[in-house]
This record gives sequence, C-alpha cells and structure tokens, in this order.
Amino acid sequence: MKKDQIAAWNPAELYLSNLSIDCVIVGYHEKQLKILCTRFEGLNGWLLPGGFIGKNENLDDAANRVLAERTGVEGLFLKQFHTFGSLQRSWEHPVNKKQLAAYEGVSAQTVKWMTERFVSVGYYALTEYSKVNPKKIEIESECRWFDVQELPDLLLDHAQMVHTALETLQLQLHHEPIGFNLLPEKFTLPEMQALYETIIGKELDQRNFTKKLLSLGIIKKLNEKKHIGGHRSPSLYKFIKRNYNKALKEGVQLAF
Amino acid sequence: MKKDQIAAWNPAELYLSNLSIDCVIVGYHEKQLKILCTRFEGLNGWLLPGGFIGKNENLDDAANRVLAERTGVEGLFLKQFHTFGSLQRSWEHPVNKKQLAAYEGVSAQTVKWMTERFVSVGYYALTEYSKVNPKKIEIESECRWFDVQELPDLLLDHAQMVHTALETLQLQLHHEPIGFNLLPEKFTLPEMQALYETIIGKELDQRNFTKKLLSLGIIKKLNEKKHIGGHRSPSLYKFIKRNYNKALKEGVQLAF
Repeated sequence: MKKDQIAAWNPAELYLSNLSIDCVIVGYHEKQLKILCTRFEGLNGWLLPGGFIGKNENLDDAANRVLAERTGVEGLFLKQFHTFGSLQRSWEHPVNKKQLAAYEGVSAQTVKWMTERFVSVGYYALTEYSKVNPKKIEIESECRWFDVQELPDLLLDHAQMVHTALETLQLQLHHEPIGFNLLPEKFTLPEMQALYETIIGKELDQRNFTKKLLSLGIIKKLNEKKHIGGHRSPSLYKFIKRNYNKALKEGVQLAF
Repeated sequence: MKKDQIAAWNPAELYLSNLSIDCVIVGYHEKQLKILCTRFEGLNGWLLPGGFIGKNENLDDAANRVLAERTGVEGLFLKQFHTFGSLQRSWEHPVNKKQLAAYEGVSAQTVKWMTERFVSVGYYALTEYSKVNPKKIEIESECRWFDVQELPDLLLDHAQMVHTALETLQLQLHHEPIGFNLLPEKFTLPEMQALYETIIGKELDQRNFTKKLLSLGIIKKLNEKKHIGGHRSPSLYKFIKRNYNKALKEGVQLAF
C-alpha cells in the first residue's frame, strides 16, 4: 500500500470488528527454533505477524492468508492454539495508543477502529526456516527471525502468545504430524531426535526413542546411508505415513 | 427476563458484536458421559448453552459466568478448546433465520444483531453431573442432560463442537488434572479406571494403568477400604496433588 492508499484504507468496511489473528510462526533449522517478528513504522517494539478476518472469509482461511503473505509459502502446517481475550490486551493502554497514533498516514477513524478492544485468535505454524524469505508489509519497517532465546520486547500480550504456542507445540508433538513437516523425506535418526529434543527442550534417551518409533511401525529403516564425511555414514529412515496417521488417530501417545 | 425486558434488551450496547461463547458442559457419573443442551422457545432444535462477551469483560470471565448461570456451581474445571469461525455457521441460513425470527418478544433490531455472523469461542467444562441442577434461562423452554450417545439434533455447528470437545478431552486427559475433578477425595482403582475408560472410550489394561500411576507417585494407597457389600472391600486411594501437578508440569505423558 502507498501512503494515499493507507489514508483511504477503511478496515471497518472490510473486516469483522474487535477480532484479530496473530501467528506464531516457528522456524526450525539444525537444532534451532526461531520466531518471525515484525516491527511497524512508528511503533517502539515488535509484534507477531497478524491480521484481520474478512467479513466474508472463514477464520482458518484468514490465518492461512496471513501466513502465506508473510512467508511466501503455501500449505504450511498451521494450527489454531488459543484465543486471547483479556481486557488488558487492548491498544487502549496509553503507551500503545500513543505509539499507534504516532503513525503517519492512517486516518483518525482507522486509528479509532484499531485501538478498540480486540480478541485475538492465535495460530502457530511450523516451517523449515531456511526455506522462507520473510516479507514485511508496506507499513512495516522490518520482518525477521529471532532466536527463541533472544526475542525482542514484544508489545501487547505477544510474549505470552509465543509462550503458549511453544507449550502447546511441546504437548502436540505427541499427537500431531509435526515431524513430517520439518524433516526431509529421508532422514537419519540423529536428525529426527535433534528435532524432537529442540522442541521439547530436553535430551531424550536415544535407545527408547528409536525403539518406540520402530515398534509402532511409524518409521522404517531404508537400505541407504547418508554420507556425512569421514567414516560416518548413518542409515537413512523414512516415515510410514499410513502408520503414523493411524497411530495419531488412535491416540497412541508418542511418550519418550 | 420478563417479556417487556426481552423487548427492551439491546445486546448491541452490552456485548462485543460477532463474537460468542459456547460451552460443552460434560457431566460424568458412574461410567456415563452426558452433555448439557438447551432449547429456546420457538427454535426447532437444541443448542449448547452459550452467551456473549461483555464489552468490559474478560473472555474467560464471560465463559465462567455462562457456566455458573447454567450449573449453579462455581469453580468448575473449564477450559477453552477451539474457536469456530466458519462462514457456514451463520444464523443467516434461511432455516435458522426463520426459526429465530419466529421468536416472540425480541425486537427486530436484536434479531438483526443476533443473525449476523458470529465467531464462537468453545469452552468445555467437566462436572459430576449428579451435583448439578441444570438451569434454563427465561427465553428457553428446556435445559437438560443428554447421554453422549443419544444427543438430539443440534443447530448450527454445535454437534461439531461436541465432537471436537470430546476429542480434546481425550487428548488432554494425559496432561490436565481431569481426574481430580470427577472422583471423590478417596476412590478405588476400579472407580478411577472406569472414569478414564469412559472418557477415552476403550478398555485399559488394569495392571499397566495402576503400575504407571503408582510408579509416578501420583496416587497413594491408603490404609482404608471401601465396603461395597458381600465380601468385596477394595482398597481406597487418593491423589498426591503435589506429584500429580509436578508430573503434569514436567510434561510426563500419562500414556496407558
């Protein structure tokens, strides 16, 4: 949007009032978790990428649209995790309101609409972050990955949102097809274990971990090895999607 | 509310627009699960008990208010599980709109407000249903328990809400303090196993179930027995709340 488009932008006509979406976009790459954050021009702090729900748009479609706009990637694993509706989360807080009003080009009517109370539906997404080119929208100054241990100051309740999303992710690792999305088609056991350990945040017993997955028929050893230099060439495995989905559906807990 | 109060009722002034709450109130008693349903005068079908969010009310407070109004019980275990935002769930559907407009005493302005699109935040609650006296509100003709296998026709997407709530409950049984709320302070192992089996919907191996709970220090055998007639007097157990909460917090999965 150009400045004159911003001035003419009337969200009250386009979107449901008082309701927003915020996305905790979690990137994984080689034992690291990162979170995608954005900074708006004139705002003294960072936010999660978010948006509004079109008056004729399904809630999930709105979340997918926001995600695709920011990552350029369609069809990522996206899941609603919690709706945040505390009164404290309002932009009405004097500091927030001042920050938002400091904004150039937005009409007073729109500032009023945006500073009303919002209940926000939180979604998390998981992606291989090396595959994503974060995209800022025009009224933002920056949009980039932060290490999960080194997040910047987040406005509103967005730090709480990240916390709740990661907590949910740790629990859902046991019954959602999360591994599929973050590992290559063929992977080594250390690669798979590293993914689970990074998300859970603790070391897993290698023998138990492997035994459980093999005994459930969820992964299968291939007659191929990965060459990683020197004398090391660990075996490659792949998921057996049918058994994995069956185990998830029947409520088998992948507890390690 | 009396009829003249209903006519003067102006929800647009009191509540956030386009946003509602629906509660799947699950009752447990002696191996049976029941769901609380309500029927409005003039509406040809049943609904889950629901309500709106006051403009100056926290989302969770609104859900607790709805729950307390219907059950008369404060402090029940209540948990948000999913927000439903499909376009299909609108009262705008001709059949629904006709049903709602058939309603006596409600102003046209209010019918308009109520038939706009609503995104609804779903909460589930768990209670010992023998302790609850379901309360209908004045514009309802009935509010009562139904066996989970014999639910009536539910309007809108409320059947889907029940399904999603029960699915969530089955998963969360492994990491939420659900047992605490539905068992007496001192219970027998068969009582506890019956609760878990009823919610999960399948039989559990008794030896594994008991062994796991005892080895985690979550339950403790008391030096007392329950007399249930004949020569049967099974031992009583209680939860060790501290260990239970610790296990839940550290992410131990109570997988059986």
